[in-house]
Amino acid sequence: MAKEKQFVSQIADIEADFPQWYTDVVLKTKLVDYGPVKGTMVIRPYGYAIWENIQREMDARFKAMGVENAYFPLLIPMSFMTKEAEHVEGFAPEVAVVTHAGGEKLEEPLVIRPTSETIIGHMYGKWVESWRDLPLRLNQWCNVMRWEKTTRPFLRTSEFLWQEGHSVYATGEEAEAETLRMLALYREFSETVLCMPVLTGRKTEKEKFAGALATYGMEAMMHDGKSLQSGTTHYMGQNFAKAFGVQFTDKDGTLKYGYTMSYGVSTRLIGALIMTHGDARGLILPPPVAPVQVIIVPVAMKKEGVLEAAFALAEELKSAGVRAKVDDTDNSPGWKYNEWEMKGVPLRIELGPRDIENGKFVAVRRDETEKQEYDRADAAKTVQTLLGLLSKSLYQKAKARMDERIVSADSLEKLLAGVEGGCFVRAGWCGDRACEDKVKQFAQATARVLDEKNDLPVCVCCGKKAQHTVFFARAY
Amino acid sequence: MAKEKQFVSQIADIEADFPQWYTDVVLKTKLVDYGPVKGTMVIRPYGYAIWENIQREMDARFKAMGVENAYFPLLIPMSFMTKEAEHVEGFAPEVAVVTHAGGEKLEEPLVIRPTSETIIGHMYGKWVESWRDLPLRLNQWCNVMRWEKTTRPFLRTSEFLWQEGHSVYATGEEAEAETLRMLALYREFSETVLCMPVLTGRKTEKEKFAGALATYGMEAMMHDGKSLQSGTTHYMGQNFAKAFGVQFTDKDGTLKYGYTMSYGVSTRLIGALIMTHGDARGLILPPPVAPVQVIIVPVAMKKEGVLEAAFALAEELKSAGVRAKVDDTDNSPGWKYNEWEMKGVPLRIELGPRDIENGKFVAVRRDETEKQEYDRADAAKTVQTLLGLLSKSLYQKAKARMDERIVSADSLEKLLAGVEGGCFVRAGWCGDRACEDKVKQFAQATARVLDEKNDLPVCVCCGKKAQHTVFFARAY
Repeated sequence: MAKEKQFVSQIADIEADFPQWYTDVVLKTKLVDYGPVKGTMVIRPYGYAIWENIQREMDARFKAMGVENAYFPLLIPMSFMTKEAEHVEGFAPEVAVVTHAGGEKLEEPLVIRPTSETIIGHMYGKWVESWRDLPLRLNQWCNVMRWEKTTRPFLRTSEFLWQEGHSVYATGEEAEAETLRMLALYREFSETVLCMPVLTGRKTEKEKFAGALATYGMEAMMHDGKSLQSGTTHYMGQNFAKAFGVQFTDKDGTLKYGYTMSYGVSTRLIGALIMTHGDARGLILPPPVAPVQVIIVPVAMKKEGVLEAAFALAEELKSAGVRAKVDDTDNSPGWKYNEWEMKGVPLRIELGPRDIENGKFVAVRRDETEKQEYDRADAAKTVQTLLGLLSKSLYQKAKARMDERIVSADSLEKLLAGVEGGCFVRAGWCGDRACEDKVKQFAQATARVLDEKNDLPVCVCCGKKAQHTVFFARAY
Repeated sequence: MAKEKQFVSQIADIEADFPQWYTDVVLKTKLVDYGPVKGTMVIRPYGYAIWENIQREMDARFKAMGVENAYFPLLIPMSFMTKEAEHVEGFAPEVAVVTHAGGEKLEEPLVIRPTSETIIGHMYGKWVESWRDLPLRLNQWCNVMRWEKTTRPFLRTSEFLWQEGHSVYATGEEAEAETLRMLALYREFSETVLCMPVLTGRKTEKEKFAGALATYGMEAMMHDGKSLQSGTTHYMGQNFAKAFGVQFTDKDGTLKYGYTMSYGVSTRLIGALIMTHGDARGLILPPPVAPVQVIIVPVAMKKEGVLEAAFALAEELKSAGVRAKVDDTDNSPGWKYNEWEMKGVPLRIELGPRDIENGKFVAVRRDETEKQEYDRADAAKTVQTLLGLLSKSLYQKAKARMDERIVSADSLEKLLAGVEGGCFVRAGWCGDRACEDKVKQFAQATARVLDEKNDLPVCVCCGKKAQHTVFFARAY
């Protein structure tokens, strides 16, 4: 006990050392641990339960849109990777390679999927024959591997969990529309399920997916003002269809290549919500994904009837669909308050003999400090209302921060000052890669997404006419 | 269309060539396809939906027992594999090895998990400190890889999906009790969710898991009388705890090793239910896991109101929790009947203008041929009743077959005749490995599980006093 208590107080100061705060919080709340191989993570039950909630919410949305789940093999022949020229250039340096299996050297090395466009393209080439087979819209929930030099739990690890959706359409217009539809789905999901405001938009050529014609990204502002890419959708045109022979006989009898697109979000979303909502005391988990939404702490636990009343309340809340839990451990109430605050449980209920006698309970929202008393009779309804208010409030707070911290710049110096001050910087851009590279060099900032509006007249770097307005930021 | 129609009629005769029937059925109903790497499979939406239903049902049972989900890394340092002597001997020949990653040769080769006792043992060694941390009961849903020479979709593939549960207890008694508890859970699951009768029992030393003190198996009888191992649970004693330093300070202050156990079922269960229930016309899917439980075929579909009535019925059934679907394609009703029969949909509803007018609908169970008319007003209740009856009937039919085909033998010749006749053979066994090997050589049959009863007096092979009564069978 004493050892754990010490850990709680050892969370680094969120303002003074945010990276250390993050590491402390994810380890000490037991969301995750380091795996034995460098760059790998073990997702512990408290972290995995968040992922299960994300999966359930996201998967329901996919199914409602008519997307079906499937499962494609982990190992991809090396030769597949080279079929799309840009794709291999982008991913080859990061792959893990299986050279031996079953006690023998393989004839052809196999790569562990870094993403599955190639192997899915191969299967689609086999399955798609007629316009009747289109659109073909599949998704898989799986693990992928990208060998990274610098890693951090959830944010960048050599192996991570994700979903990857892959669709083929008969026309480019339809495939592009799906690319934007999925981006909108991700945005709605972030806002309502993760209570996390995002910027969405097209990526520059430099930042796009290897092999795509266009990549769209969803960017969220973290506590320190840096950006975290939290989801992407890609329009491939016919690049992969041609590489893998995804052809169909159209209604007019002619043979045509399909148009493909893909989209993905990963366990990185867990990192995103931690760094969006957390505070000095630890995690604040958005109610829709919190493994425990309500922690009930019995006060004077050994007095007759207190524990029974706590468990009865928990059952009542569970019946109403609330994820409630009683902390009946031997720790003191004060210790429990600290622990569950660090673990980010949205709502704490305190229930003691006097509350029980008076038909009341006390509740404290994780984002507030004051205790409020409520009628026991309306518990389920009250708790649902409080969780809803908390969700809204988390979103609004994060939204206000992001809005406050979006500034414009018309010079590299101002752009640098902006990102150093923890802001996203809107700036004009001529569209040249050279200027994008210079911004990176000068301000360690990258083009996160293009704004839909193009209202800034000149390029922040070269001063020529701007082709786009860009959100620049430092990013994870 | 013509092409597909031809495929349907091309299913091999189930009695004449069961292996070919299996291959035809799994491919033609689009449950699965071959992946590009030899021995791999692609699980297509219709197959994956069965797996999702299995997962949902099984996962709910685990959670109700207090088991939590987590996720451990795919890649295991080669050195971990060698820490438990029997384990490495059993699995080393089958592993796929990553030797290069991120463009460099790795210092230590990494194996793709064939099972995760070692890496989970390593993490448990890090996490477990006190008796308060026990029991520790985690499960993961993931992919695993075992490089096999002879493969068949679902039954044996180099990569497959499974769940693996791993628990540590303070005492051997508790860990053994959990091993039997999980075996009972698998049995109940097979019987009620897959409608599949099984034999459960302890495995012989020869057949046990590499590194376990005892393995328990669940064996199901397939259509051809062969056995399919459909789930296993393992009691490890302190073998892995000692190899990975899983130690805890007990209540008395002394440092002790924990006792571990593990358990798993895989996508092989899909193969099991196909080969248990299928018939000459194709699949018969047990209602609890069927992706589509009721297919509604509109008759005279172009007549006014028919399609609307079909969709209204589907919505009503869905609201009642039934997975219903309308086939509104251009194919003829007869073609649809054949297709959905092959795909094993438990219940077909035919709905035409006259039925609609009379307030009736016609339903046909997949395991029967006669059509029955029912009142439209009670549709949801009727359908639920029919699905329940079908589940029971599938179980009873398979149970009757298994019961009929369990025979006893007191000589190797009789044992051979039994397994050649598609039976499980109960026989006495002295307990010597030599006799077990001789049975294998003589009859190509293996000891599937030990019977709880030991009522046969002498060893079927050597004639000495029997120590056990064994179920011998040919197996997949």
